[in-house]
Amino acid sequence: MTQIGFVGLGKMGGNMVARITRDSDHDVVAFDRDPDVVTTIAEQTGARGADSLEDLVGKLQAPRLVWIMVPAGAPTQGTVDALAELLQAGDTVVDGGNSKWTDDKARAATLAAGGIDYVDVGTSGGVWGLEVGYCMMVGGPDEAVTRLAPILDVLAPETNELSRDAIGPRGWGHFGPSGAGHYVKMVHNGVEYGLMQAYAEGFDLFDKSEYDLDNAKIAHLWGQGSVVRSWLCELAARAFELQGNDLSELSGYTADSGEGRWTIAEAMDRDVPTPVITASLFARFYSRANGDFTHRMLSALRAQFGGHATKKSADG
Amino acid sequence: MTQIGFVGLGKMGGNMVARITRDSDHDVVAFDRDPDVVTTIAEQTGARGADSLEDLVGKLQAPRLVWIMVPAGAPTQGTVDALAELLQAGDTVVDGGNSKWTDDKARAATLAAGGIDYVDVGTSGGVWGLEVGYCMMVGGPDEAVTRLAPILDVLAPETNELSRDAIGPRGWGHFGPSGAGHYVKMVHNGVEYGLMQAYAEGFDLFDKSEYDLDNAKIAHLWGQGSVVRSWLCELAARAFELQGNDLSELSGYTADSGEGRWTIAEAMDRDVPTPVITASLFARFYSRANGDFTHRMLSALRAQFGGHATKKSADG
Repeated sequence: MTQIGFVGLGKMGGNMVARITRDSDHDVVAFDRDPDVVTTIAEQTGARGADSLEDLVGKLQAPRLVWIMVPAGAPTQGTVDALAELLQAGDTVVDGGNSKWTDDKARAATLAAGGIDYVDVGTSGGVWGLEVGYCMMVGGPDEAVTRLAPILDVLAPETNELSRDAIGPRGWGHFGPSGAGHYVKMVHNGVEYGLMQAYAEGFDLFDKSEYDLDNAKIAHLWGQGSVVRSWLCELAARAFELQGNDLSELSGYTADSGEGRWTIAEAMDRDVPTPVITASLFARFYSRANGDFTHRMLSALRAQFGGHATKKSADG
Repeated sequence: MTQIGFVGLGKMGGNMVARITRDSDHDVVAFDRDPDVVTTIAEQTGARGADSLEDLVGKLQAPRLVWIMVPAGAPTQGTVDALAELLQAGDTVVDGGNSKWTDDKARAATLAAGGIDYVDVGTSGGVWGLEVGYCMMVGGPDEAVTRLAPILDVLAPETNELSRDAIGPRGWGHFGPSGAGHYVKMVHNGVEYGLMQAYAEGFDLFDKSEYDLDNAKIAHLWGQGSVVRSWLCELAARAFELQGNDLSELSGYTADSGEGRWTIAEAMDRDVPTPVITASLFARFYSRANGDFTHRMLSALRAQFGGHATKKSADG
């Protein structure tokens, strides 16, 4: 039985607490800045609720494990800073969010001065993680990761026996010192952008083809022994089935949550050409009607050199 | 029991004949321009050997099915033309190679004049198809595809129950008239280029990272519930295991067999932006030391405008 505190009970944090309490006898103390959420999660999962960070820390026995699952950036940094004041040497802070790996390195160095360990956990699997388990990429000191392992085993169990010889019967891996987990997760997301864009371009061609092609049927068939079979292809089949082969009711506006930008920034720092990951991020920018000035300027220049007609904008 | 003639007994054709004779009681007549190969395949598989196209056609009962599995382009066209002289109305020619879909349309029109049906089958799964079954994308007239179905069921069985409701218990799909099969396969390969390049860029970053990352371990872990899990990721794990995390004994020279170029040409015809598929093909061109003149010209221009030092080539 391992004891762990959870800070942040949103969709991801709440699902993780639910998974741990459902599948193990680990003792979870749960806190969220919204007290109603704490009450709900405590009732639903059997986790012990805490009404403040102080209360959460007080309900854990040293050496403590505290898992932070709040939005990356200021909310996570603020929580780390607050916990630094409350925890003691030998305790461990775990950041399970989407932090930038360089932030992890800075936090680990700060906390280490007080003898507190810092473990970064990059999580993939999204909202499906509650059901099938997450894939977790971990960075941090060996001892702290070893103490966290029983929790990781529940959150990220083996889902594919193929890799048991290589990584053991688990769905998490420890890749190096602090920052390494989020580094691997960052690049995972950059690769994910490229994979998504490659499929999307292919199905865009099917949409425009002279044949009357059934995108759902193609995506389903590609799951049958083809070289491009993947979970994303299964999700595509599901999307075409639920939303129609032309996805006509969806907006094309595609957000990004930063990891693609960080991947490309790292590629700049390391002189690694990443044309596909970069083009995938830029395609998302285009999907948000960015590049608008570029397009007006192209139109203007064509008119200048060749007298090509320009179209006026609808409201111009 | 269905009867089929096979023309071309190379790695793919030979494996297909082996799979059909191993897993069904279908009657296969096999021909290759190399008589030794015919003898070997006949001995290994129990297929009946033929010593010429005439002999093959003579050994099949009308209405005949003849599957061509020779290199795309002139060899396939020559075989189709020769068979057109030997077959009769009601017979069906199947092209299981990597033909361009526009060639399929032209052949189908020519053969239709003589009452001969033409079915195009795009095949994915490579050398793993013998073991796990192929994924087959089919175009052609309904009746001809129905006659071919018992053969397709053996070559391309269901490998993923997830899609049974959508496409039935099979690993092949019929997508439209002649050309549709190779069209879907062409785009499949374009997508495949993009997927491969996305993974490759990500692992290139791992190779250059300040962390001492284990590529095999990462690729194996990504197979455990991550969003980027796929068969290509499993193959990457296998490659890193067998050839080392730095792949240092491999040449980077990466060939292409045409489908990527055709995908991009089709994107031009349909005004579909395909930046990732295009960048993936161009990355392969770079891998063959193309772009050399571009690079020399960049070097020359930097020297011209800024006085930046140029490097002489090793032999210049």
